[in-house]
Amino acid sequence: MADLKENDIHLALIHYPVFNKIGEIVTSSVTTLDVHDISRAARTYAVNSFYVVTPLKTQRQLVERLIEHWMTGYGAEYNPTRKEALLATRVTKNIKETVQDLAERCGQKPVTVATGASQFPNSIDYPSLREKIGNGKPILLLFGTGWGLEKSILAEADYVLDPIDGVGEYNHLPVRAAVAIILDRLLAR
Amino acid sequence: MADLKENDIHLALIHYPVFNKIGEIVTSSVTTLDVHDISRAARTYAVNSFYVVTPLKTQRQLVERLIEHWMTGYGAEYNPTRKEALLATRVTKNIKETVQDLAERCGQKPVTVATGASQFPNSIDYPSLREKIGNGKPILLLFGTGWGLEKSILAEADYVLDPIDGVGEYNHLPVRAAVAIILDRLLAR
Repeated sequence: MADLKENDIHLALIHYPVFNKIGEIVTSSVTTLDVHDISRAARTYAVNSFYVVTPLKTQRQLVERLIEHWMTGYGAEYNPTRKEALLATRVTKNIKETVQDLAERCGQKPVTVATGASQFPNSIDYPSLREKIGNGKPILLLFGTGWGLEKSILAEADYVLDPIDGVGEYNHLPVRAAVAIILDRLLAR
Repeated sequence: MADLKENDIHLALIHYPVFNKIGEIVTSSVTTLDVHDISRAARTYAVNSFYVVTPLKTQRQLVERLIEHWMTGYGAEYNPTRKEALLATRVTKNIKETVQDLAERCGQKPVTVATGASQFPNSIDYPSLREKIGNGKPILLLFGTGWGLEKSILAEADYVLDPIDGVGEYNHLPVRAAVAIILDRLLAR
């Protein structure tokens, strides 16, 4: 793996502010399965880092314990592919802290790209975003849990990625499936 | 949804015979999360039907109860998008029964396409399989749980779909992520 050139692309899984089923703004719970599935997809497509973002301290501690369990000791030995997937997984409090952390790590602020199920004035399509990858600026993709990212995040992001259009009207993919499809569209050779 | 033209493509999630982590042939347990995630991806891409395939009667009953719960009564009212996703979900005992059921429903035997992480003599690439969809023959995609489909299934299938190549060497996507990516590659507009 030492020779793997990582893409300058980063993911953030946002647990606040997101919508719930009836359109209220809530903090969703961290799902450990999302952390494992998205870590594996991120590793498969050589994503540089994956941030699990929640304002709840106990939930951040849960994810830190989960990462520690699989990185060291029995977990690492029992399931090395899970360990490897979690190498790039980090925990932050909010989007601002995530952007700051990335700016420090990369030496410049990332271009932020929100994802969602609708079109917006700042929407960008897949080929256009694909072209921006590797152009010298880090890219941070924002994914919402629950019923999706609160509107202000979409408005403040540099871009909103086009929705994944399936075939019919149905548009209720789990976030872990949406991440897998979007990484494949943006990064597959 | 009445005007949705469904693709003549069908999925089967195989729980036996599959490999475990150390290469033994085993029956894996049904994961209800796989059933929900794959049902949602199938619905998103207008897949005609999704078979959960296991020889264990208690596990088939579990999936049947799960479908019934979300299709009728409180579950259907609480989460209608989950109900809609499960409309095409079915349960069978083995691949043979799945192929027979499809042959009866479609009036002809399906073309079987196994999926896995390696290349085979009967491998087919994504553009070639995409061309076959809608050519009058139903297509049945076979996905393995655990550490993948046992070799005889790959040998007996009409085709084996090329592996999903990510960017590096890492190749350990959850089956639910693999299904989402493969449907997107084969069916996205």
